[in-house]
Amino acid sequence: MDATRPKNSTRPIGVFDSGIGGLTVVRALCELLPNESIFYLGDTARVPYGGKSAATVERYSLEISGLLLEENCKTIVVACNTASALALPKLEATSPVTVTGVIQPGAAAAVGTTRNGHIGVIGTRATIKSGAYERAIRALDDKVQVSGRACPLFVPLIEEGWLESEITDRVVRQYLEPLVQDGIDTLVLGCTHYPLLRDAIGRFLGDTVQLVDSAQNCAIAVSHLLQAAKLGAPPGSEGTLAVALTDPPDAFLEVARKSLRLDIGTVQLREVLHLAK
Amino acid sequence: MDATRPKNSTRPIGVFDSGIGGLTVVRALCELLPNESIFYLGDTARVPYGGKSAATVERYSLEISGLLLEENCKTIVVACNTASALALPKLEATSPVTVTGVIQPGAAAAVGTTRNGHIGVIGTRATIKSGAYERAIRALDDKVQVSGRACPLFVPLIEEGWLESEITDRVVRQYLEPLVQDGIDTLVLGCTHYPLLRDAIGRFLGDTVQLVDSAQNCAIAVSHLLQAAKLGAPPGSEGTLAVALTDPPDAFLEVARKSLRLDIGTVQLREVLHLAK
Repeated sequence: MDATRPKNSTRPIGVFDSGIGGLTVVRALCELLPNESIFYLGDTARVPYGGKSAATVERYSLEISGLLLEENCKTIVVACNTASALALPKLEATSPVTVTGVIQPGAAAAVGTTRNGHIGVIGTRATIKSGAYERAIRALDDKVQVSGRACPLFVPLIEEGWLESEITDRVVRQYLEPLVQDGIDTLVLGCTHYPLLRDAIGRFLGDTVQLVDSAQNCAIAVSHLLQAAKLGAPPGSEGTLAVALTDPPDAFLEVARKSLRLDIGTVQLREVLHLAK
Repeated sequence: MDATRPKNSTRPIGVFDSGIGGLTVVRALCELLPNESIFYLGDTARVPYGGKSAATVERYSLEISGLLLEENCKTIVVACNTASALALPKLEATSPVTVTGVIQPGAAAAVGTTRNGHIGVIGTRATIKSGAYERAIRALDDKVQVSGRACPLFVPLIEEGWLESEITDRVVRQYLEPLVQDGIDTLVLGCTHYPLLRDAIGRFLGDTVQLVDSAQNCAIAVSHLLQAAKLGAPPGSEGTLAVALTDPPDAFLEVARKSLRLDIGTVQLREVLHLAK
């Protein structure tokens, strides 16, 4: 170990999501930063956040960041679009470590990708309703047109493991056809589950629309942030992954483990300290 | 008002569900018992219960029954299959008023309906995994064969309002075809959302399989119970409906209000007191 590096660089990256979907961000982090250790918390007892109010999602996010700080995490990654949309300002204002969401990196990548200035965004009802991607995109370039669409069937289709199915292809068409007809040339996958539907979405879109994967772009942002703060793990260290859930895992963990080829090991069952409302 | 009736007969019937789906039980109660007042609590801040552990669902159910007792409810109706499957014994043991779930009435109706002794049950993953319908059915007739199937796509399809859609018809076929091929002649709708898919399910099944609606049979059981305990509302009284949610309503409330033709009025936003784990 290089003694000149700060001592805390071997501390884990803390990643959280309302459920299992955020493991797509873990997959992207593992590929980009193989030396880093990751502590993942999936709040499966309270999943999904997608239909919940801003105040509730904010409270849940603060409760979970408390647990990640107890785990000595050096930075917090909000691998959940709903929590990124609704709770990031509060988390940033209260956390002693840096916080990265999935929306800003996805928005920046989309603005860099579009050629015709028309970007589509898909996500849960809460993410789309929040308008967070639209705000983030238009803060970067206010001439860009943004068309949002909530796709509440995608998560249960993915959790059912129907990644290659005619039903899924039809649902994809039902949700995305209006966006294509609107003239988008770039589509942001604004939910951490959605990279698992990348193939089905790609089959429908063909070459006409470029996909922007929020999970991948979030991992890139974390990598830049650790580099800038000199908080990266020493080059020789072996990255580890610890996965904790607030409710016992169900079948979807197997879907994710298999599709993402993640070595998850034994899953911890953890409780989150409830904050007063 | 008839002075010989017990004074507490005008107290409301307390109904709860993890979300909005339990309004199908309210619809059935309103039809059967138009003089009764109903207080409905949908725990939308923590919906769905379907993927949660037994301990978590039990705790949530106790928290909600506490709120219903504060509302002076004369009986509690668990209009949620998951909570009926996992929390009913605990609720019955601790509640000072009677408690009716949806499973026992649905199981009894199914046993009375089947001719060939082969019953299918559909519901959320948690309801099917619990085996609660199978146990309730076989306790009534241990020669009956039960085939269960979790249908996790049904609830999001219903909440999207896609009640008449080719996608829904295909999902119905995907889930139900194996049950029909197994030889069931009776199918229990083991989730309070599912009566809203009654037409789509009926289109696939035709006359070959009889549907048993748990919501309807639960209402019948409540009616018998109130009659036996002389707790029914006076014949002249006007039934009222109060709906409270733990998180602000979303689009599905409109789907339910329209499909069920319920006069919901202003929705109250309520907090449930959290019990220690």
